[in-house]
Amino acid sequence: MAVGETRFPEMPVIEGLRLGTAMAGIKKPDRRDLVVIEVPEGARVAGAFTRNAFCAAPVTVAREHLADGEGARYLVINTGNANAGTGATGLRDARATCAELARLAGVEETSVLPFSTGVIGEPLPMERLLAGLPGAVQTLDAGSDAWRAAGEGILTTDTRAKGASVTLSLGDATVTINGIAKGSGMIRPDMATMLAFVATDAAIEQSLLDRLLREAVERSFNCITVDSDTSTNDACLLIATGRGAAVADGEALERFREGLLRVMTELAQAVIRDGEGATKFVTLRVEEARSRREALDVAFTVAHSPLVKTALYASDANWGRILAAVGRAPVEAFDVDRVTIDLGEVRLVENGGRAPGYAEAAGSAVMAREEIEIRIALGRGEQHATVWTSDLSHDYVSINADYRS
Amino acid sequence: MAVGETRFPEMPVIEGLRLGTAMAGIKKPDRRDLVVIEVPEGARVAGAFTRNAFCAAPVTVAREHLADGEGARYLVINTGNANAGTGATGLRDARATCAELARLAGVEETSVLPFSTGVIGEPLPMERLLAGLPGAVQTLDAGSDAWRAAGEGILTTDTRAKGASVTLSLGDATVTINGIAKGSGMIRPDMATMLAFVATDAAIEQSLLDRLLREAVERSFNCITVDSDTSTNDACLLIATGRGAAVADGEALERFREGLLRVMTELAQAVIRDGEGATKFVTLRVEEARSRREALDVAFTVAHSPLVKTALYASDANWGRILAAVGRAPVEAFDVDRVTIDLGEVRLVENGGRAPGYAEAAGSAVMAREEIEIRIALGRGEQHATVWTSDLSHDYVSINADYRS
Repeated sequence: MAVGETRFPEMPVIEGLRLGTAMAGIKKPDRRDLVVIEVPEGARVAGAFTRNAFCAAPVTVAREHLADGEGARYLVINTGNANAGTGATGLRDARATCAELARLAGVEETSVLPFSTGVIGEPLPMERLLAGLPGAVQTLDAGSDAWRAAGEGILTTDTRAKGASVTLSLGDATVTINGIAKGSGMIRPDMATMLAFVATDAAIEQSLLDRLLREAVERSFNCITVDSDTSTNDACLLIATGRGAAVADGEALERFREGLLRVMTELAQAVIRDGEGATKFVTLRVEEARSRREALDVAFTVAHSPLVKTALYASDANWGRILAAVGRAPVEAFDVDRVTIDLGEVRLVENGGRAPGYAEAAGSAVMAREEIEIRIALGRGEQHATVWTSDLSHDYVSINADYRS
Repeated sequence: MAVGETRFPEMPVIEGLRLGTAMAGIKKPDRRDLVVIEVPEGARVAGAFTRNAFCAAPVTVAREHLADGEGARYLVINTGNANAGTGATGLRDARATCAELARLAGVEETSVLPFSTGVIGEPLPMERLLAGLPGAVQTLDAGSDAWRAAGEGILTTDTRAKGASVTLSLGDATVTINGIAKGSGMIRPDMATMLAFVATDAAIEQSLLDRLLREAVERSFNCITVDSDTSTNDACLLIATGRGAAVADGEALERFREGLLRVMTELAQAVIRDGEGATKFVTLRVEEARSRREALDVAFTVAHSPLVKTALYASDANWGRILAAVGRAPVEAFDVDRVTIDLGEVRLVENGGRAPGYAEAAGSAVMAREEIEIRIALGRGEQHATVWTSDLSHDYVSINADYRS
């Protein structure tokens, strides 16, 4: 199941940045499951990682290698196995993967960043993984097909590859931002989604790149949820090759910031459209809050409510469940008589109860849509936040109960 | 669906306390849906109510009437309609219900406490409700059958009546504690479960009664969750008729406290066994925490994880999902290498990964049981907490998606 269409876009070349894939048979045969991304010398790389205390071994190693300041030259990503909850063996395997790719490519082990996604708690099948590396390196290419193949190579329970791209005119120059992401279940990123790789040819100084990534993650991947379960492996990387126009301040910075947010929001929304068992794509906008934190708290309380999510699945305009979820959100001194709730263009709730003009048929008509917007105004301030989520369907239960993922 | 057996127990008479029921046709015909409980003069009543900001009209009125200090003489409970999200009309209807019962019984309106449970956001069908009151008053009786009928009269999506009773010897005297409860979905009480009524013949001074109720609620109803959705109508009442032995301090107080906790825990567990779509009854015990709050935070994070709940439904010993949920719990400076996780008698996790001796077959054998205990030791303190929960099944989705509840 998935909501609407998500076409993988044409990806312009980002000079010096190449992607290669292989079928290493890590979990299933005949499936792309190993991806190598080559980063040109001198590029800057910023990373955002899960805040789950049980973070996976590759997250620990990628953080270390990024922090040493030597610059990353290769990313290696496997699916089918998360290398999480694997203790000392997992760390050794993640380092051995970096070492082998470093040997093949003739770089330092610490300039390789490892990423894994898949089942938690099983040791990486190192023999098959290492045997797959040369094939991935041989296919390294900068073209649009290589981006698409890499987009496929990082999927797990996802039903489709997710890519986004913008090209910005900055004065005389143009700058490209390409990104791919994966994620479908265990999605409630707390720093970044499962895995997302975004690259640009812009020239951006390291501390600004770090800040741009942090800001964009905060408004994109950190604003989506499928099932409230923050993964052990979340990671989002932003690579700036530096071969294109400089982005430092003024209008160029503003346009780049907007373009980056657009790419990352599109990827984050594509994750929700492909959420496990999703039949609805839901935008939850909370307005008139005292703080953005408060708006997010209300939005996530509603987005995580199993009763709201099953009502969405049923296309049932059950506003009582939305109201009950809003009412249990952690909001200090909450005057619910000031709250209004709108479903699309239909007012559901005001003055603590059903809106006077509300007719069930109007609510049902909006709920029947595949894409639904719920707006909740708290009447206590001027801050707002938007969160995207999916519904809770029989398919979600089947996907997560019928086999080990 | 429901887990195991829950027999409605024999309920000893609590002198002066009588229960009556009627079929008022509030939502469905031929079903007990209206309950009146008569409290003898001079009894003390303590109440605990939902902290959902959108609390229902009857909750507001019951709180007011309890607070006036005149003492309660009657409780009136309807199912089929929650009278929540009904604004000013809802308040008027709740007061009119109290006024009519007061007139029939010859007491003050403010000595009647109203309670409602059922669908949110629809006006109470006042004509049918008021027409049912005389019948409920006529059937008032103190016997065990009256308790059972009342237990049935408060149910909504529940599949069975829930009762618990203990008789304590306090020196030469005996004291009885009887209780009934309802609840199946929208269960994550934050003060008390959906509806629970507990009565004793003990003589207990008001401030002590309030404290005993608060303490017992904290360790029983506030430690269960089906779906994380705190209801708008939660209420738990404790009535002490005062006709039996005095409970004030010393051993009598200790024994009463224990007995009360036993009755309330049994009722709370019965709610979980009858949780919407439940196929498993799960005890989550978190140990070695720095504070009880921290232990509860970890327990509820695991209990609310859709991925853990679907794995429980599938009888899949997917310890990676438990570990990921523990890792995202809001715990400061969490050293996950000190965490151990046990499933029944089987050690799953230690040193940040799979326990060395763990074999999948052993985990699967425990998961196949209907009643499962998961113990999580955090290795950072001496506090602990226990939370009870159910799994997330296809039936949960069906119950909440296939019709309006």
